[in-house]
Amino acid sequence: MPQNTDRYRLLIACSDRPGIIAAVSDILGREGANITAFDQYSEGLSEDGMFFMRAEFDAALGATGPERLSSQIQNIAEPYDMQWKLALARRPQRLCVFVSREDHCLNELLWQTQRGDIAASVALIISNHSDLKALADRFDIPFYHFPVTAQTKADSEARAIRAIREHDAQTIVLARYMQVLSEHFVSTFPERIINIHHSFLPAFVGPKPYHQAYARGVKLIGATAHYVTADLDAGPIIEQDVHRVDHRHQLDDLKRLGRQVERMVLARAVDWHVSDRVLVSGNRTVVFPF
Amino acid sequence: MPQNTDRYRLLIACSDRPGIIAAVSDILGREGANITAFDQYSEGLSEDGMFFMRAEFDAALGATGPERLSSQIQNIAEPYDMQWKLALARRPQRLCVFVSREDHCLNELLWQTQRGDIAASVALIISNHSDLKALADRFDIPFYHFPVTAQTKADSEARAIRAIREHDAQTIVLARYMQVLSEHFVSTFPERIINIHHSFLPAFVGPKPYHQAYARGVKLIGATAHYVTADLDAGPIIEQDVHRVDHRHQLDDLKRLGRQVERMVLARAVDWHVSDRVLVSGNRTVVFPF
Amino acid sequence: MPQNTDRYRLLIACSDRPGIIAAVSDILGREGANITAFDQYSEGLSEDGMFFMRAEFDAALGATGPERLSSQIQNIAEPYDMQWKLALARRPQRLCVFVSREDHCLNELLWQTQRGDIAASVALIISNHSDLKALADRFDIPFYHFPVTAQTKADSEARAIRAIREHDAQTIVLARYMQVLSEHFVSTFPERIINIHHSFLPAFVGPKPYHQAYARGVKLIGATAHYVTADLDAGPIIEQDVHRVDHRHQLDDLKRLGRQVERMVLARAVDWHVSDRVLVSGNRTVVFPF
Amino acid sequence: MPQNTDRYRLLIACSDRPGIIAAVSDILGREGANITAFDQYSEGLSEDGMFFMRAEFDAALGATGPERLSSQIQNIAEPYDMQWKLALARRPQRLCVFVSREDHCLNELLWQTQRGDIAASVALIISNHSDLKALADRFDIPFYHFPVTAQTKADSEARAIRAIREHDAQTIVLARYMQVLSEHFVSTFPERIINIHHSFLPAFVGPKPYHQAYARGVKLIGATAHYVTADLDAGPIIEQDVHRVDHRHQLDDLKRLGRQVERMVLARAVDWHVSDRVLVSGNRTVVFPF
Repeated sequence: MPQNTDRYRLLIACSDRPGIIAAVSDILGREGANITAFDQYSEGLSEDGMFFMRAEFDAALGATGPERLSSQIQNIAEPYDMQWKLALARRPQRLCVFVSREDHCLNELLWQTQRGDIAASVALIISNHSDLKALADRFDIPFYHFPVTAQTKADSEARAIRAIREHDAQTIVLARYMQVLSEHFVSTFPERIINIHHSFLPAFVGPKPYHQAYARGVKLIGATAHYVTADLDAGPIIEQDVHRVDHRHQLDDLKRLGRQVERMVLARAVDWHVSDRVLVSGNRTVVFPF
Repeated sequence: MPQNTDRYRLLIACSDRPGIIAAVSDILGREGANITAFDQYSEGLSEDGMFFMRAEFDAALGATGPERLSSQIQNIAEPYDMQWKLALARRPQRLCVFVSREDHCLNELLWQTQRGDIAASVALIISNHSDLKALADRFDIPFYHFPVTAQTKADSEARAIRAIREHDAQTIVLARYMQVLSEHFVSTFPERIINIHHSFLPAFVGPKPYHQAYARGVKLIGATAHYVTADLDAGPIIEQDVHRVDHRHQLDDLKRLGRQVERMVLARAVDWHVSDRVLVSGNRTVVFPF
Repeated sequence: MPQNTDRYRLLIACSDRPGIIAAVSDILGREGANITAFDQYSEGLSEDGMFFMRAEFDAALGATGPERLSSQIQNIAEPYDMQWKLALARRPQRLCVFVSREDHCLNELLWQTQRGDIAASVALIISNHSDLKALADRFDIPFYHFPVTAQTKADSEARAIRAIREHDAQTIVLARYMQVLSEHFVSTFPERIINIHHSFLPAFVGPKPYHQAYARGVKLIGATAHYVTADLDAGPIIEQDVHRVDHRHQLDDLKRLGRQVERMVLARAVDWHVSDRVLVSGNRTVVFPF
Repeated sequence: MPQNTDRYRLLIACSDRPGIIAAVSDILGREGANITAFDQYSEGLSEDGMFFMRAEFDAALGATGPERLSSQIQNIAEPYDMQWKLALARRPQRLCVFVSREDHCLNELLWQTQRGDIAASVALIISNHSDLKALADRFDIPFYHFPVTAQTKADSEARAIRAIREHDAQTIVLARYMQVLSEHFVSTFPERIINIHHSFLPAFVGPKPYHQAYARGVKLIGATAHYVTADLDAGPIIEQDVHRVDHRHQLDDLKRLGRQVERMVLARAVDWHVSDRVLVSGNRTVVFPF
């Protein structure tokens, strides 16, 4: 491999039309790119059919290369009406993690990012409680305690937005954060806020899903990681998983088992998001998981 | 093992109080019963705590033995306010299967009962359509075509009840039967009607669950087998399972994959029911699965 | 979509080198093909890295088109040292199913092919026993009883090969066929014979895997569908799955539960194979599953 | 509930004979015990059939009660040739965790024990490397670095045994400890050493199971928690689980995904062991999982 080679990721979403792959391949070929992973999904050429693509490639673009490549992509983006993104793979994303009192999801994220199992770093932690400050300290992560009441909510969100920007965090993870964010906050970070809901959505939307699951007598409990939109618990789903339970499991047991599912589902969703593997299409996601 | 030994199953549900197991063990011990399987579940001695028990045992009770044993159980049943049932294990249950046009669930039941993988026999098939008569004929099972319209519904249900009784069927299985049964019909067979719902309840209650699942963009589809009560899709859940899907699965693919989950979930639920492994407690089930 | 449009599948395997996707896209683009599914997997440009591709596309090629397209692909196949295959998707494969006495795998294949859940047809059934003739008759499938002894084995295999050819079957499925095929037979149908082994290979190779699993006290039983090679139970794995068991499951229970896993794993493997979703690479498979 | 009530667990294993449950129920009933959980498994009265039982009960036994209860159990233990154990449930077990360089299994145990999700505490950590001392320090757990070479092995094991005894640890967990323990060490703690093997045993015994799995092209990777016996990788299996992989997963990916399976499987096995839910029967386990 030549020196100064970097790994890039190119994501594209547009209406499906013939020739897209050829046009993109042509550009990458001219730049001497070596495609290491290529995922594509087409809904077909019918009226509303969309096309989604993710390419990971190695290229020695030099100082001016990324800009040159971007301008070539922009040239084809216009006729095809593409949404696209070019990312440098070796630049790991920085996360802002929101928590309340439960530590299991935060713990899993701290651990997997520290180990390199998730290619991102936790840049800051924001909480409406101070309980998890000790955990943040143990990992040397800045911790912001912004209490939330009806009176302070707008102000706390404004301070959170400032902190997120100061720390240059690109992705926000709600790791069992028990507050509803305002529409303003949500629209500030579109498709960049990931929540873990402790049920198999759309079953048991709203609060206390394990209480609801217990009352309904389900035989599987689940968790759902999704992008946050203005519509509570209704954003595009990234990942879901379940765990088998039976009549012996009381409410506390559902919560205990649920914690394992929640942290695994959230960790996978964050992993895929920071690897640029998730594209949003209306209220659905296209995921090119590993 | 002595000659004339039979295998029995004893099911008990009552408020939990000390001494129940000892009292039952004592009775079975006096009859020389050899307990081959014993499952028990207690919710504890707190105010509402229930106790559930399933014992499978071999005993050479002789001609008058079952009655003698029943009367001894009845003696302890009164002080403990027990609901109980004594069943002869070698007497396989007879099923009445309701279908509409989809054949996959019926097929699975015909096959597993014929093979002996489910210890029951299909005694009759009832349908509001005639499509599956050929399949019934292939297995030599009586097939009743009772069309259902607003006008004929009451009459069709009355004929169904007569057919069920003539064929001495104890359990009714709705194997993708696309009609809602009347409250009268449901209350005629309490805790004896099993339905397969083609979603992970309580997500996507009501009609067209795969359409709903597709629209919501879920990452797992599921199926739920439950007892039918007057409240549609809300009866006690016996079994649930899921299958992973992704953005590539269109509506027809969800249906195709769903068929495999539905028939497996329904077959397990019927298997457990006819083996006297399911007890109902309010709107929940206690299942002692194998 | 223009009239006379057909759906095709193009499969390619070769050493990974830059420009392959662009070259193929270019050819398909010139023929006006609309790519409906595109899967690609690259092992990277390092010394041994391979490249695998599956494209499904609609094109109105006309009478001479397939040949013209093939010749263009052949032009790039030579410099890239490609192995490739162009298939017409609407031509469903014809299967030859080998069985002994167990019917569950055959039953699943008959059922799913008849329903259209697997896009293939069972063209003939060959058995070393006559037990399953009645089942074959029920589905109107030609059944050949070729008993196998040390003396008759070579002759029976020769007759089987003739029958396979007469019925124009492309794929051979060993659906719990309890005979080892000769090296001659296996090499006659390279990468076209699929076997279901009733264990999670490579655990419990050889005969009586459920006995071995029971003796070892495993907590999961499994099944493996693989291509048959001269080396028994060691061919490339297409699909595997497992089912949870516990101490209560006796040998017969493992077999009973195992039957459900076996038939599902085999059905998936056959489905993927006849949809041209499986490529073999050494002793591994690249599967582009749906 | 009366004051001074404690929760106890009684485990029994013996040849199956009629009357065991009645005899035990009788003793517990006389002591006024309230059985909160009762699991029993019988292999039947045939020649080798075993009987296993676990009862969890609340009783106010007073100072001399446990001894009195034990002596009553001993009275029936002799005629029935029982192995039995009476444990006080509120006395959490103390663990000695052996590690080498991988931290994921240790991390999971530290975390779940600290949170109370596993009812035990990590009393000490022993390692042949010093890498994980910092992690031990963070949780304030004594860490012993006992390097192992051919020369020092016997001495290191002797020091380990002393440390285990000083810290009063009942259960030893090999959390990816990459050394084989001597027969002497193993026999010092019979049925009290739990190992996590990073494959679905008995597939890929021995070293480097992920290399083996990758080479074989399996579609599922797994992990196995088992009791350690003198026979390497062959002890009684407590728990197993798997994770789906495909052709895209390189060796490092198998290891990364495997880490999640390993730590979950090990955590479940340790949880069940310290809750007295696992009984060993020959080379198999009877697990009464929650």
